[in-house]
Amino acid sequence: MSKEITIIDGNEAAAYIAHKTNEVCAIYPITPSSNMGEWADQWSSEGRKNIWGTVPLVVELQSEGGASGAVHGALQTGALTTTFTASQGLLLMIPNMYKIAGELTATVFHVSARSLACQALSIFGDHSDVMSTRSTGWAMLVSNSVQEVMDMALIAQAATLEARVPFLHFFDGFRTSHEVAKVFPIADDHIRAMISDELVAAHRQRALNPERPVVRGTAQNPDVYFQGRETVNPFYAAAPAIVQKEMDKFAKLTGRQYRLFDYFGAADAERVLVIMGSGAETALETVMYLQKHGGEKIGVLRVHLYRPFSNADFINALPKSVKAIAVLDRTKEPGGAGEPLYQDVVTVIAEAMGSGKAPFAKMPKIIGGRYGLSSKEFTPAMIKAVFDELKKDSPKNHFTVGINDDVSKTSLTYDPHFITESDSVVRAMFFGLGADGTVGANKNSIKIIGEETEMQAQGYFVYDSKKAGSRTVSHLRFGPDPIHSPYLIQAANFIGCHQAIFLDQVDMLRFAAKGSVFLLNSPHGKDEAWDKLPRSVQQAIIDKQIKFYVIDGYKVAKETGMGSRVNTIMQTCFFAISGVLPKDEAIEKIKYSIKKTYGKKGEDIVKKNFEAVDKTLANLHEIKVPAKATSTHEIPPVVSA
Amino acid sequence: MSKEITIIDGNEAAAYIAHKTNEVCAIYPITPSSNMGEWADQWSSEGRKNIWGTVPLVVELQSEGGASGAVHGALQTGALTTTFTASQGLLLMIPNMYKIAGELTATVFHVSARSLACQALSIFGDHSDVMSTRSTGWAMLVSNSVQEVMDMALIAQAATLEARVPFLHFFDGFRTSHEVAKVFPIADDHIRAMISDELVAAHRQRALNPERPVVRGTAQNPDVYFQGRETVNPFYAAAPAIVQKEMDKFAKLTGRQYRLFDYFGAADAERVLVIMGSGAETALETVMYLQKHGGEKIGVLRVHLYRPFSNADFINALPKSVKAIAVLDRTKEPGGAGEPLYQDVVTVIAEAMGSGKAPFAKMPKIIGGRYGLSSKEFTPAMIKAVFDELKKDSPKNHFTVGINDDVSKTSLTYDPHFITESDSVVRAMFFGLGADGTVGANKNSIKIIGEETEMQAQGYFVYDSKKAGSRTVSHLRFGPDPIHSPYLIQAANFIGCHQAIFLDQVDMLRFAAKGSVFLLNSPHGKDEAWDKLPRSVQQAIIDKQIKFYVIDGYKVAKETGMGSRVNTIMQTCFFAISGVLPKDEAIEKIKYSIKKTYGKKGEDIVKKNFEAVDKTLANLHEIKVPAKATSTHEIPPVVSA
Repeated sequence: MSKEITIIDGNEAAAYIAHKTNEVCAIYPITPSSNMGEWADQWSSEGRKNIWGTVPLVVELQSEGGASGAVHGALQTGALTTTFTASQGLLLMIPNMYKIAGELTATVFHVSARSLACQALSIFGDHSDVMSTRSTGWAMLVSNSVQEVMDMALIAQAATLEARVPFLHFFDGFRTSHEVAKVFPIADDHIRAMISDELVAAHRQRALNPERPVVRGTAQNPDVYFQGRETVNPFYAAAPAIVQKEMDKFAKLTGRQYRLFDYFGAADAERVLVIMGSGAETALETVMYLQKHGGEKIGVLRVHLYRPFSNADFINALPKSVKAIAVLDRTKEPGGAGEPLYQDVVTVIAEAMGSGKAPFAKMPKIIGGRYGLSSKEFTPAMIKAVFDELKKDSPKNHFTVGINDDVSKTSLTYDPHFITESDSVVRAMFFGLGADGTVGANKNSIKIIGEETEMQAQGYFVYDSKKAGSRTVSHLRFGPDPIHSPYLIQAANFIGCHQAIFLDQVDMLRFAAKGSVFLLNSPHGKDEAWDKLPRSVQQAIIDKQIKFYVIDGYKVAKETGMGSRVNTIMQTCFFAISGVLPKDEAIEKIKYSIKKTYGKKGEDIVKKNFEAVDKTLANLHEIKVPAKATSTHEIPPVVSA
Repeated sequence: MSKEITIIDGNEAAAYIAHKTNEVCAIYPITPSSNMGEWADQWSSEGRKNIWGTVPLVVELQSEGGASGAVHGALQTGALTTTFTASQGLLLMIPNMYKIAGELTATVFHVSARSLACQALSIFGDHSDVMSTRSTGWAMLVSNSVQEVMDMALIAQAATLEARVPFLHFFDGFRTSHEVAKVFPIADDHIRAMISDELVAAHRQRALNPERPVVRGTAQNPDVYFQGRETVNPFYAAAPAIVQKEMDKFAKLTGRQYRLFDYFGAADAERVLVIMGSGAETALETVMYLQKHGGEKIGVLRVHLYRPFSNADFINALPKSVKAIAVLDRTKEPGGAGEPLYQDVVTVIAEAMGSGKAPFAKMPKIIGGRYGLSSKEFTPAMIKAVFDELKKDSPKNHFTVGINDDVSKTSLTYDPHFITESDSVVRAMFFGLGADGTVGANKNSIKIIGEETEMQAQGYFVYDSKKAGSRTVSHLRFGPDPIHSPYLIQAANFIGCHQAIFLDQVDMLRFAAKGSVFLLNSPHGKDEAWDKLPRSVQQAIIDKQIKFYVIDGYKVAKETGMGSRVNTIMQTCFFAISGVLPKDEAIEKIKYSIKKTYGKKGEDIVKKNFEAVDKTLANLHEIKVPAKATSTHEIPPVVSA
């Protein structure tokens, strides 16, 4: 990763820094964090070294309980130690987390935040697991994007060594852990510059060692426990400034400046959102859009350091003009007086008002809401609905957004047609079959475009619960500006249907923007393809003025000896007609990539793939769209009458 | 327990109701909750039946993780199921707690709240364990005294069946779990009246059963999980009213009325404390005392239902005149914006003010503080210090009380001479050796006085970390009025030193009130006993006008064939000179008790004990106290120069 940019997902970004800056990784796999442990394991088995030139020891334990115990033990020997987890895995670490924090031990846990099993299990993302550990005394640093995952992972590691408070570094499971994005990797020199040798030496000095005997892990009685518990206060008081110092140092090295609370919006904003995680990126995009299109007095405060919560930094980051605040929590605590971030904001602002030190003329209205549980989509339309709610005299509190709660009527309504995506962004969706190579080809396309051009790139892949054999939907964005859209594509300008069978299963063109391109892998050939479409698909093509392309991918695959693998063929089509790159340049890059990928497997396979690429272009046809839908069959209902 | 009163500790009170109202107890022992499981196990092994006439199944699992899993499983079969735990044990139950709550399953866990292992392990009491589970969606009902433990255990069981929300019923580890008190047991008829057969039948109907197949415990994806998670809202909204309804029903049956938030104090109070657990009793006593002695505008709000937190009930329970509130948390969350109860109170009051519906003229000042971690003593003097702090224009927030935090200067100072105990209360302290029978004899004395007289009785026993062979200090209170003093005796009017060796180890007379009685088991006999005292003990006896009694207990024990057991002898002395009962009546009751205790072991042992009682009276001497201290030796320093 010495090159200037790389295309990776959030898990790899976290693992990259963790593996570079630790000596021991005690792991146990749990979705969606497993890949972090797998990367660390793979790199160590390949002999990849950390910044001190040693290969980290990666050990898999019998459960997350064991992993956290092993971490605690390794830390006590003075080893720099980490782990990766989520959800119930994190819950099993709670007992050891209290001890690690109580003993003021420097470590970072990387957590791809995930829902907890309540009425049902869910492997998807929200902050319920992280919030369940907020009593443990760990610092919590949040990453809102893949780039931030890499950056905050390092900032956390640097800060924990000085602060002595352990850090839980978290980011949204799936949405950030599995989003593939263009990232500036951090050079080893910069990592070395961030990690102080003196602080590492001090960490080692605190190890249990028979040559410097100390006792630790004792039992204390009422005579001294309370006093002992309070001795940590100065460490927590100092931690926020230490994190900011490391953020500033990091900015000097990389040019990327973060703050504990990053405000964006009008300097005279009256309505402000407070949020953390990937949703903060969506909020940022929405505020940018609304400001550009209406100049509204709004802003968003993106939380980076959630614990220790720095009252002064929070108050200072808010515009003095704020009159109404909405706090968005990606978790739910039934029976509580409110969700955690909401209660923190109310507490901190009430304290500031009470002390007379708040810069606000009047106590702002504060409401709280829940969003995005279990990776429920969270879009600019929902954020706009929250800003609209804040305009009301009596805005709804303890609301939900993104669902229609018809049981307890908590939901805000939102206008799904409110879309902020820029026209300059290529937004491509691909419908494939699990294990048909679609996702792999798309990741390859992102690499080609992201690494070989100046364009920004983002990929997100939606799988069914079952993996191989069911539907995959790939969401790819390419554009000239940084992409702050951690949500599914809502208006695609390219839709690729890699399996004709999906035409009868999913109304995929409802995602198509006006004037977009629809590519169909059809067994029926250019003359029959139109007639075989369901009527509503024909109508959508007509109504939305969609350019309709067809290829018989399986025929090309068969003829070029590719068997049933259509991934290279469909990828070639995408490059040929999406316009994301000049066609010839794109074809050249695909071929270069084929050589890189299959070169080791022999000249023959490379040649077959090259032939498939060339044949593809000859077999790709644009279909002239008739003025009227003529098909007699419809997409069958999901549940029959 | 059909008799009208009984003398038990908090653990037995909880276990009593739990065993009466459940069919399965899945247990794993952890201090200070172990006794609850042990009681249940013992009663089931003795064939004791629950209110439906069946003997509950008590099973011990391999850990608290397993216990909570077994509970979850048993509940899914429709069995009424419970468990008992604390501290790290409760932490291991968190994953199952989310599931049990998510599936809206009726159960009560009884928790003797205990500290968590942080900088050190502690087996003593605070609310850190309970607070660590407040995200799980469990209702939380708090008992502040031994009587309340029995009452709330039943109210929780009745409420959970209707509310469908599982209940965590907690009380202070050691202070309440191990305090022996005079309790009105709840008659089986009343238990039956509280537990609705229809609701039990409904609980059974919800069981997984092949004859009524339903699926439960599935995996949900982003499409439905969030909506599913929100379906529980109406259950949480309804729970507080259900609990109040059960409290009212309970009041009709027993005469003991509780409210979700019980206010006591001036109707026009300006300064109010909010607190839960045994400390709420101390606060109650302090407010009673201060009102009687100064008529101050103060009050205390004792929390019973902590979750779901009922905003309306909380606001309504506060006097409209309140200007300043102190919220006391028995836990610590380093890095948080504040401790949990404090943040809840701030949130609820800020919401009420924001909505314009609050009955207060102005937003009250609110401060939060920590007290009593790991059973650190919490006394009326500390409560007075908090009320005094509330008088200030800028009271300290996030304070501690009860320690001298000389590191981060959080502590309030308090006047340890502020003592609220009533003169009408006999306050006796006994210094014994672990396993010398002192604690057992004292428990017996409490039974004699509590069961056979109208007097209220309380006993609390302080052990060293090591058990047998080290010092035990028994704290006994007897008096005409209900005792709201869940703290150690500060001014004893009787001090019994059962081992002369302690004279050189602990300055026990610093606890002695003026004019109190000091009983010493001395090997030196009546003539030498005075001269053998350390000089400071002599001086204290003189200064405090203490009546000094001596017996050579070991000599009496030897002569009457009791070997080295002095417990009956010292107990007899206590009754003979403390004046708690008329002497002859007391002796008769001791003998009756001896017959009951040792009757089964044979006539000979009973006779020996009777003889010991009689000989005791002949060997007990009051020593005439000289006008001057004459001893030449001092209590040696704990650490030598």
